[in-house]
Amino acid sequence: MKIADRISHITGGSADGWGVYYRARDLIAAGERVANLTIGEPDIKTDPAILEAMAASAASGNTGYTVGPGQEPLRREIAARVQARTGVPTNWRNVVVTPGGQAALFAVHMALLDAGDVGLYCAPFYPTYPGTIRATGAKAVAVPTRSDRAFQPEAAEIEARAAGARTLLINTPNNPTGVIYSTDTVAQIAAACVARDLWLISDEVYDTQVWNGAHVSPRALPGMAERVVVIGSMSKSHAMTGSRIGWIVAPEPVAEAVAVLATNTTYGVSGFVQDAALFALRQGAAFEAAIAAPFHRRRDIVARGLGNSPAVRLIPPEGAMYVMVDIRATGLSGAEFAHRLLEQEQIAVMPGESFGAPAAGHLRIALTLEDGALEAALARLRGFAEALRG
Amino acid sequence: MKIADRISHITGGSADGWGVYYRARDLIAAGERVANLTIGEPDIKTDPAILEAMAASAASGNTGYTVGPGQEPLRREIAARVQARTGVPTNWRNVVVTPGGQAALFAVHMALLDAGDVGLYCAPFYPTYPGTIRATGAKAVAVPTRSDRAFQPEAAEIEARAAGARTLLINTPNNPTGVIYSTDTVAQIAAACVARDLWLISDEVYDTQVWNGAHVSPRALPGMAERVVVIGSMSKSHAMTGSRIGWIVAPEPVAEAVAVLATNTTYGVSGFVQDAALFALRQGAAFEAAIAAPFHRRRDIVARGLGNSPAVRLIPPEGAMYVMVDIRATGLSGAEFAHRLLEQEQIAVMPGESFGAPAAGHLRIALTLEDGALEAALARLRGFAEALRG
Repeated sequence: MKIADRISHITGGSADGWGVYYRARDLIAAGERVANLTIGEPDIKTDPAILEAMAASAASGNTGYTVGPGQEPLRREIAARVQARTGVPTNWRNVVVTPGGQAALFAVHMALLDAGDVGLYCAPFYPTYPGTIRATGAKAVAVPTRSDRAFQPEAAEIEARAAGARTLLINTPNNPTGVIYSTDTVAQIAAACVARDLWLISDEVYDTQVWNGAHVSPRALPGMAERVVVIGSMSKSHAMTGSRIGWIVAPEPVAEAVAVLATNTTYGVSGFVQDAALFALRQGAAFEAAIAAPFHRRRDIVARGLGNSPAVRLIPPEGAMYVMVDIRATGLSGAEFAHRLLEQEQIAVMPGESFGAPAAGHLRIALTLEDGALEAALARLRGFAEALRG
Repeated sequence: MKIADRISHITGGSADGWGVYYRARDLIAAGERVANLTIGEPDIKTDPAILEAMAASAASGNTGYTVGPGQEPLRREIAARVQARTGVPTNWRNVVVTPGGQAALFAVHMALLDAGDVGLYCAPFYPTYPGTIRATGAKAVAVPTRSDRAFQPEAAEIEARAAGARTLLINTPNNPTGVIYSTDTVAQIAAACVARDLWLISDEVYDTQVWNGAHVSPRALPGMAERVVVIGSMSKSHAMTGSRIGWIVAPEPVAEAVAVLATNTTYGVSGFVQDAALFALRQGAAFEAAIAAPFHRRRDIVARGLGNSPAVRLIPPEGAMYVMVDIRATGLSGAEFAHRLLEQEQIAVMPGESFGAPAAGHLRIALTLEDGALEAALARLRGFAEALRG
């Protein structure tokens, strides 16, 4: 009995690079004290007021089927939010609600890629990106970026890989690097997409976590709204990872295609979860700033704790809930460093290799530990690195 | 800018057959009184105790990411349930939790079909079936069944269409026909799948709605557990349509493939919804019987109301929340009959043509109206049909 070739195509036959994460989880389960800086899960729970809004919606009877593309009030709220943040005219027909940002990523690639097409994505990358593209039957091709250029994508690297490509997936503010694409970078990306007639899929789920400069959505550039699909989510902005709710904002033909897919893949999103999201989005900017604030504080803790180390070079951390550090001066790979750091110091971080070749010799540190514990862990990480360098 | 060919492949370019449904919805929105017997939504809300379990889980902090294949306690509960109902040894690794039965249908076809393969399904069919198969890039091929054989699939019809096929999708108790596949039918289907080396995907979401005889899961037949994937859902058994939670039960390699897909398509199901499902499954048989009871009562109302009519022939209604009637004696197509019935009698039913050619000249009546209103609507439907026959 044969499984579809699709499945081995998705995994690419390689290890998933999450060995440190699994080992840390096992140690924690066994009662060990581990400073866990591996995954991007906010260390706060969803706000009780949001959960009460969900419970109230369910109790009032919103427990039946919802229409595929999402409830109209939520689609209108998301459209208004996106328009207010970018200035781009956006209406509710541009919006499709999905069961999470990952489902949005998958749906839009399904809507835009056929088997045999090429889908581009920038490396370093969020680990599901290549598998998401491959799940459609397409070929996933990485566009490398360079540590010494703060992992900003360059038009020439995109264009060099555009043969057969129909889409380019970017992420700013970026996971895993913590950088924000500059205005110039976004303009270069947009120009490359126009030159090679690519759809640009812009994952902006960290757009409320901006510590330096400004987040520029490529959809706001002249003429780009017809070519850009934005991925959004409540997971990071509102600490609602477990609610599994996200969206796409897209030209209407793409939104309609994603709605067709929704009928055949998900059959809609729980109405009470949509009502909770609507309530959450209406809490306003101060609510969102309060959720982002700990990561901003911790970014500063990292900058203070690791600045000027001869062994640990900080990639300028501008946004998102991660920082990336270059530990090549220690002579170890990211994977070797991370495994030894876990065993010797009980600190778990992700090896850069888990996010693609350009992040080899780097580590991703998730800012998901309480400030004091983070500061102490960083001091030990720094000492560990500097001792290696000798 | 081009949308993937996949999208037009999914829709097949044909009208969706839901004109009567949309028209009824518009009439109801405009304030008209319409007896709506179109869709399979239970006319009760999710039980408050289940919603309270969900709210309690969320309030207690189960608001973060969950692992892809589902929470282990829920997977164990589902495995135990399936084993108890079928006698087939089943462990939690055979189970993957999905965001609804539709998501389960899609995931298993994604795991078993590559682009260009053939996926078989029986007609009449639940309307998402062909699109779900096509969404994978595969070709969807209908296996016809016959009204005068109570729409029971026959091995010869399956084998005649097995060239290039890798899967066969069946549904018993059946939507839209209201029949239950007999022991002989299930044995014939199983034998055909063995003969042609097909995976058998068995949609059993109506398995708590059995009015005559017994539901036989093909997974329980000798040697079939390694070839059968069962689709389950909380939507009908527990009136939880809006919670979007379902599952697959499959051989471990298939379950593992579906879990790989989950990482790249959904990233898990809300933990608080899984906890609500676990609570609901533990309410036991009496709870489920109470949810099924109104449909059983209404099935009897239909049998009384339409029995022995010279114009309306009842397909023996054995299970699920629908009955199908043959109105060919009126000389109208199902679509003509349904449109005229809506305009003249303000009764909305689905034309059989919406479910494939073998149901042409038939109507599907959903048992989702309160008993007295259903009885009155049926009397008018019968009168309308008999007047047509003259």
